[in-house]
Amino acid sequence: MKNFIQHHPWKVIEETFHPLWNRVSESLFSLGNGNMGHRGNFEEGYSGETLQGHYVAGVYYPDKTRVGWWKIGYPEYFAKVLNAPAWIGIGIELDEEPVDLARMKVERFWRELDMRTGTLTRTFAATTAGGKAVEVTACRFCSMARKELGLIRYRLTSKNFNGRITLTLDADADVKNQDANYDEKFWREVSRKVTDQYIIITAATLKTDFHVSTGTAYRIFLNGKPVSLQPEIAEREKYAAHRISIAVQAGDTIEIVKYGVIASSFNHSKQNVELHCHRLLDELRGIPFEQLHNEHIQRWEEIWRDCDITIEGDAAAQQGIRFAIFHLMQTYTGEDERLNIGPKGFTGEKYGGSTYWDTEAYCLPFYMSTAGQHVARNLLLYRYRHLPKAIENARKLGFENGAALYPMVTMNGEECHNEWEITFEEIHRNGAIAYAIYDYVRYTGDEEYLTDYGLEVLLALSRFWSQRVNWSDAKGGYVMLGVTGPNEYENNVNNNWYTNYIARWTLTYTLEVLAWARKHAGDKTRALTEKAGLRADEEKCWQDIIEKLYLPEDPTRGIFLQQDGFLDKELRTVDSLKPAERPLNQHWSWDRILRSCFIKQADVLQGLYFFEDHFDREVIRKNFDFYEPMTVHESSLSPCVHAILACSLGYLHKAYEMFLRTARLDLDDYNNDTEDGLHVTSMAGTWMSLVKGFGGMRVKDGRLYLNPIVPGPWQSYSFRILFRNRVLRITAKQGTEATVKLESGNPIEIQLGDKILNVQ
Amino acid sequence: MKNFIQHHPWKVIEETFHPLWNRVSESLFSLGNGNMGHRGNFEEGYSGETLQGHYVAGVYYPDKTRVGWWKIGYPEYFAKVLNAPAWIGIGIELDEEPVDLARMKVERFWRELDMRTGTLTRTFAATTAGGKAVEVTACRFCSMARKELGLIRYRLTSKNFNGRITLTLDADADVKNQDANYDEKFWREVSRKVTDQYIIITAATLKTDFHVSTGTAYRIFLNGKPVSLQPEIAEREKYAAHRISIAVQAGDTIEIVKYGVIASSFNHSKQNVELHCHRLLDELRGIPFEQLHNEHIQRWEEIWRDCDITIEGDAAAQQGIRFAIFHLMQTYTGEDERLNIGPKGFTGEKYGGSTYWDTEAYCLPFYMSTAGQHVARNLLLYRYRHLPKAIENARKLGFENGAALYPMVTMNGEECHNEWEITFEEIHRNGAIAYAIYDYVRYTGDEEYLTDYGLEVLLALSRFWSQRVNWSDAKGGYVMLGVTGPNEYENNVNNNWYTNYIARWTLTYTLEVLAWARKHAGDKTRALTEKAGLRADEEKCWQDIIEKLYLPEDPTRGIFLQQDGFLDKELRTVDSLKPAERPLNQHWSWDRILRSCFIKQADVLQGLYFFEDHFDREVIRKNFDFYEPMTVHESSLSPCVHAILACSLGYLHKAYEMFLRTARLDLDDYNNDTEDGLHVTSMAGTWMSLVKGFGGMRVKDGRLYLNPIVPGPWQSYSFRILFRNRVLRITAKQGTEATVKLESGNPIEIQLGDKILNVQ
Repeated sequence: MKNFIQHHPWKVIEETFHPLWNRVSESLFSLGNGNMGHRGNFEEGYSGETLQGHYVAGVYYPDKTRVGWWKIGYPEYFAKVLNAPAWIGIGIELDEEPVDLARMKVERFWRELDMRTGTLTRTFAATTAGGKAVEVTACRFCSMARKELGLIRYRLTSKNFNGRITLTLDADADVKNQDANYDEKFWREVSRKVTDQYIIITAATLKTDFHVSTGTAYRIFLNGKPVSLQPEIAEREKYAAHRISIAVQAGDTIEIVKYGVIASSFNHSKQNVELHCHRLLDELRGIPFEQLHNEHIQRWEEIWRDCDITIEGDAAAQQGIRFAIFHLMQTYTGEDERLNIGPKGFTGEKYGGSTYWDTEAYCLPFYMSTAGQHVARNLLLYRYRHLPKAIENARKLGFENGAALYPMVTMNGEECHNEWEITFEEIHRNGAIAYAIYDYVRYTGDEEYLTDYGLEVLLALSRFWSQRVNWSDAKGGYVMLGVTGPNEYENNVNNNWYTNYIARWTLTYTLEVLAWARKHAGDKTRALTEKAGLRADEEKCWQDIIEKLYLPEDPTRGIFLQQDGFLDKELRTVDSLKPAERPLNQHWSWDRILRSCFIKQADVLQGLYFFEDHFDREVIRKNFDFYEPMTVHESSLSPCVHAILACSLGYLHKAYEMFLRTARLDLDDYNNDTEDGLHVTSMAGTWMSLVKGFGGMRVKDGRLYLNPIVPGPWQSYSFRILFRNRVLRITAKQGTEATVKLESGNPIEIQLGDKILNVQ
Repeated sequence: MKNFIQHHPWKVIEETFHPLWNRVSESLFSLGNGNMGHRGNFEEGYSGETLQGHYVAGVYYPDKTRVGWWKIGYPEYFAKVLNAPAWIGIGIELDEEPVDLARMKVERFWRELDMRTGTLTRTFAATTAGGKAVEVTACRFCSMARKELGLIRYRLTSKNFNGRITLTLDADADVKNQDANYDEKFWREVSRKVTDQYIIITAATLKTDFHVSTGTAYRIFLNGKPVSLQPEIAEREKYAAHRISIAVQAGDTIEIVKYGVIASSFNHSKQNVELHCHRLLDELRGIPFEQLHNEHIQRWEEIWRDCDITIEGDAAAQQGIRFAIFHLMQTYTGEDERLNIGPKGFTGEKYGGSTYWDTEAYCLPFYMSTAGQHVARNLLLYRYRHLPKAIENARKLGFENGAALYPMVTMNGEECHNEWEITFEEIHRNGAIAYAIYDYVRYTGDEEYLTDYGLEVLLALSRFWSQRVNWSDAKGGYVMLGVTGPNEYENNVNNNWYTNYIARWTLTYTLEVLAWARKHAGDKTRALTEKAGLRADEEKCWQDIIEKLYLPEDPTRGIFLQQDGFLDKELRTVDSLKPAERPLNQHWSWDRILRSCFIKQADVLQGLYFFEDHFDREVIRKNFDFYEPMTVHESSLSPCVHAILACSLGYLHKAYEMFLRTARLDLDDYNNDTEDGLHVTSMAGTWMSLVKGFGGMRVKDGRLYLNPIVPGPWQSYSFRILFRNRVLRITAKQGTEATVKLESGNPIEIQLGDKILNVQ
């Protein structure tokens, strides 16, 4: 855990330079706009510890899989988030000495990300080994108004240096992924257009052949006056730069405005990518920085008006929740159903691939309530479109008759993860995909989605579960062997309670939806079941499994067992661990982690969170009291679930602790891995912790329930949600009753606490 | 399963050319002499399917580890058996057309390995696309008399071709491993000496810097008369060849005798390797082929005199047992305690590394009975010397106080396997290492080994087991969680019966040996326990675990359970599998294998074999009857254990089936993987199946027991063993009583069947 980011309600501020944590800061200061993004790398370059990262939505590379020992059913490739061509480079030489903070004496350094305006500003004063002192202020944004534009205003003042400053303004497609299994580069050059005015490099990904044109242009001012200097052009394969030399005196200020335009074949035809880039560049380079910046700020104002959550009395929490909303909105805007939410968004390469069960289990509620039904539906359709590939995936593993196993990690519907204990065994993802359908219909009331798309997916999922269990004479019931639950600190266990429970629920829900669909849309349903070749004995079989599926529990303790044999472990609590052992995954060998009782992320509790209506509060309490003290929360997805349950159990202190843990996970680098990128999908969990946790938001039988409680350190909080064509603002204050205000839409009856309220 | 090798008591014969199975044949026709070896590659080269392989004992390469996701405790490298410089090349061009069986019409082909003389002979008649017909007879051996020499006599007759034959006689260090994680080459050139008379290439391995000099020289005869032709020299980095052109007429015969000398820094100083190679080449190239061949044959005669096993009435079985003895003797001769027995010997790259638990559990009995106490002791000392590294290995995984975990796979004592479920969890290897000490002392009576070396190892092993178990309140006993047993078709299971049992036995045996040592060698023992820092409470703790270790069983069925939860599986027998699904590991995904009941190799039965005296025959029978039908024997180490148990249970038909399966595993390619190399270590299991299985050999309280039975298809069999300075020949004939003859040494009292016999 670190503590170097200033607490501030709207800004992320690093007050001095922390070279050791530079990669952490680069993650925290990432910018994006749903279409592209990049890490907080320095424009002038940096020879110290850095992870260079530019990313373009939908553009990936299927890197050749690397495994120790191949197993049947492994995918051929692992789809990687691709480090894309860089456009931010503004190299600076003071005579022969480069501006490079790794090699300079840094007298002053300030970096801030203003989340309100989506603007990154960095200012520093530093002196070279040769004694040349400069001051720099760099300001950058990734335009929310024009999704293919990024812009930099870089001001450099010579403090004592008289001589030549040489600028290198480049576009660089000669980049590589840090996470490249065989150390290969993934881009080839398609074309390189360089004039005195601009550079456009068009590069294509190997194998997937995405074409991306990266165009740059610039304007230069000396002491506020535009200057026009003849650039020298430096070129090589996949790289081009304008080199410009300017004579300066101490006190002079050079300002560079650098335009970056990124156009990709994900959105344009390959033939047009370069031309489009060219046109945009022509159009934009005439527009001043301030004008483009204002458009961008205005768009962020709209976003914040819709989605902001305010917390009074707790700057750390306020900063955390805004950081979460800010990065979610930078990552995915829901306009394109081909896209999804990568676990690291545009902030790092790790985890590759874009889609995990994170989307269904964590992100969907956020987008449902903030971006609305259409965006949520797009997230569901993403999986619907991948159904044929999920069926093919299951078939490869020996399942039959149209059973579907969705991939654990995917870009295009194909599995691209290759650890057997995850790929083949962490099958609860299928459960989350069913649950998301239920959750979406419950929230939006869009029942038509079921007959149009949902039921088809549910049938394939139920077919999977029914083949994945087997009858056990010993247990006198069906069992599910060899799975990995949400708690990935257990592998290949039998009868993981969560997985068994969600499997049984999927079967039940499928039969329910089927009965409802037959009643309400008989013809459509008949056509669908005929297409799927659904047999009556399948439904019988599902019913039999529903009735006889084994679920491990310990009646003495009144708890569900995470899996068979869990009580054979040495039962310890997290507070018995030495700080030097945390996080466990960075200090313990895998076998030790596996046989310990320590839980990476909510597992039984995840199930109780999803299905809280199925259980008495006391049952939930006993399980929470048993499992929470053993949970190390080394998955970013864990604390939010604990926060929500703690709220409903009245454990306000624990809920607040868990809220800070999810809200400040990256800001304080709890798990010592923020350097790889931000935990973007878990930020939706931060939102849920507040809205579903403290806010107590639920939907039951089409009605919205709210039950706000205010944790001790807060004076008040307020959030806004979309619900069935209404916009509602909920405000909760310490010591007084919460209020719900209808900001748009027709009056609606909701429940607030134990009262029915007609909000109008 | 294939059936293309002729059944013959002394020879392995392939009667026609099988290009599709050429890699299988290359494995079967491998040659070696304990110091070097190579696969049955063609001298003239081959552009079809082939795995080129030359290997030098003790010379390995630590290839950079490749894993999907790194886990704490993984080794940095995987030691690879190294494909070494090749010396066998005799390229042939008929004018411009090469002799290459992949591109010729093959009219006749015959390949035979005479195991009696260790000689590989290949003869063929073939015609090029251009109509040039030749006949070739190539004869090759790897000298058992001179361990650094290999020799080829290659005769080629032109049938219809008048023109120039160009020979390319090379030495080639520009080789690569097929099994190279990053497709790198592992050799660099040190020097290259080429004269008209010889080639010596000295190459060194990267990282490990083993130096190997490969020298070649030749003599050429035309129609029986020596010819001396000026060679053209072709050279490049790591490669050199003599190219010789000879004018021939139809009917002419060229004979090439090619000498290969391999000297390595494993046996010589680096400075001397090349010089030694040079001297040997000078010395040997004057000696005719026949003379060197005769020396070699004579050495094989001695080996067969000592180790041969005859079986009358069953050529398939006879061929199988000799094939096993032949390859074991080619692989390891026991002269060098730094060496060990690689699972593929000198016949392939797969499995890398040299030492697995195969050595202790399978190979030791063979070498004890055929090569004697000194060789067996060397195998034990190999592990004794690695004890500090085993302690270090355990420490890395979180174990303390001098606990040792021996590596699963090693070259030099360091772990080099990197699948967590094997590396960290297949810890039963520690048990086999304890058992081997017991087995060795039991067989040889060499009790001094215990106080000199054995006890120190046992203490470290017991320390490991005592830390690896934990107390379970639920079970009211100690449990061992998260292990992989011998049956690798289960991973990360709890309370694997075999592992728990051998752990408990190790603790018991350690305490027994400790008590004995304190009594018989008080001072030595005191010094040892002080050095180890052994505390009284450790011994108490071990005793407590011995008394309270949980062992899973099913009292109803009267069986031990392979692991917790085994009875939850769908219990099927192997005969319910479709042939197209076998072997499972080539057709089923890993999760499906894991959750099935099918057993890769003897697991509970392995324990019953090791500790048969601890159990009633009826207990063994019930377990055999339960587990045998579920065992797919997809490990080469499996059928031998089943064969031995089947013999002791009187299941003679099953025993015979299992014997053939182990004896002909590679000859008939049961598991469809012989192409990767032979299953050398399991060949010791073939020997055990006969001697311990049909022969019923046991040692109890210092006395030799024999109880020969003869399977139906056999008229008789006879084997010879070394036992406590005696040589005994045991002969069993169908229908008459077996005989035991003392061939050397003092009279000895043994038990034959139920009779005590004084053999003199």
